Amino acid sequence: MSGARLYVVGLGPGPASMRTPQAEAALEAAQDLVGYGPYLARLPERPGQRRHASDNREELDRARLALSLAAQGRTVAVCSGGDAGVFAMAAAVFEAVEQGEPEWRTLDIEVVAGVSAMFAAAARLGAPLGGDFCAISLSDNLKPWEIVLSRLRAAAEAGFVIALYNPLSRARAWQLGAAFEALRDVLPGATPVAFCAAIGRPDEAISITNLEHAEPALADMRTLVLIGALTTRTISRPDGRPWLYTPRSVGERA
Amino acid sequence: MSGARLYVVGLGPGPASMRTPQAEAALEAAQDLVGYGPYLARLPERPGQRRHASDNREELDRARLALSLAAQGRTVAVCSGGDAGVFAMAAAVFEAVEQGEPEWRTLDIEVVAGVSAMFAAAARLGAPLGGDFCAISLSDNLKPWEIVLSRLRAAAEAGFVIALYNPLSRARAWQLGAAFEALRDVLPGATPVAFCAAIGRPDEAISITNLEHAEPALADMRTLVLIGALTTRTISRPDGRPWLYTPRSVGERA
Repeated sequence: MSGARLYVVGLGPGPASMRTPQAEAALEAAQDLVGYGPYLARLPERPGQRRHASDNREELDRARLALSLAAQGRTVAVCSGGDAGVFAMAAAVFEAVEQGEPEWRTLDIEVVAGVSAMFAAAARLGAPLGGDFCAISLSDNLKPWEIVLSRLRAAAEAGFVIALYNPLSRARAWQLGAAFEALRDVLPGATPVAFCAAIGRPDEAISITNLEHAEPALADMRTLVLIGALTTRTISRPDGRPWLYTPRSVGERA
Repeated sequence: MSGARLYVVGLGPGPASMRTPQAEAALEAAQDLVGYGPYLARLPERPGQRRHASDNREELDRARLALSLAAQGRTVAVCSGGDAGVFAMAAAVFEAVEQGEPEWRTLDIEVVAGVSAMFAAAARLGAPLGGDFCAISLSDNLKPWEIVLSRLRAAAEAGFVIALYNPLSRARAWQLGAAFEALRDVLPGATPVAFCAAIGRPDEAISITNLEHAEPALADMRTLVLIGALTTRTISRPDGRPWLYTPRSVGERA
């Protein structure tokens, strides 16, 4: 398998202007692209390059396919939106390696970092992640809902700004509402909440509200939800959307 | 001030190959570059472009300078390493806006997201941030040490992987050791800990150990420290450094 390599590539939020040259070089070098269909559809076709598009829920199968191809000597790029290490394919690839063929541990695997959805969303809002922050996936097909809830509460009580990934899916309608309920026990109703969908893409949509008025109906599968901390501030502007930011410093009160 | 714009640009971890085209375009459009000296030194000189390099600790002054220049009608890029919104200049700029001249709220401010140090480090290790995670700055000139400690404990108890920024400075030698001590009360000694310095740059240095053996001497000012969760796993390899990853799923036990 000399020369073969498995890239696990973060494509960034969408547009090529937010994708690194390192990611572009990996995509160009690849003989096989493996990934969720809509992500692959954003990439230009290249002569001779094979595409293996799959469904959203088959991450481990997709990782195994990519590892098998690389073990056959092919140069493969597994593609994720945003950063490949954030609720995306990198963890699935290494989980497949650990459970899979011993020879997969000898493969040359290179994870190529990208601009994550949470940082792209934060940039459009101002600087809401300026203090300590955390990222939580609301998907409960991978962890018990009690753990999701306990992490939400612990993060809010400790003063972290929270980025919520995977707030909804066709199979899950109630979790985001339950998450807001749990957070209302800990944080004031005036805490800023932002719903950020499709950042950097033509259908980008941002709405800013607060915890009291936060509604699951403001989110869909593409939405990242940012929930402020006690210290997060709103700057009103004469024109346009307010800016959100979290100061780097925390007073004795927080 | 028509046409003037203030960009707050994330330069990524270092090399141009990890910088987005969007960031490059902002750097090219700028008439004035404002930032910490070593970051500006990584950028090519451009004819006619002015540079305002400053010390590391003068973030608010630097933000005010950039806003004043933009208010005079100049196109300005404030530069940060990594992502501009993560313990970097974006929060300082909006703090300066909130406290500053009313007209600063009418400026066209665009934050340009970048590849953050934590995701670049994670990519080099495998997928340690594959589950829920948080980022904490150990700098206590911006927040009381008791808050840092309570956030560390809360994050470790709740099962977050932890990325520690600013682990040391010339003025602070003891905090990182105290942080490890606090985490040893909560997490097993076998918990993976990685020290990642200067990722993507020629002097990149990574060392992997565990919480029992983690020593502040393994870090310097450039180091990002990643501390695993209970679920974080190590994959040994016949050749080379082990891979670290955190599975996307959490069993009932966690």
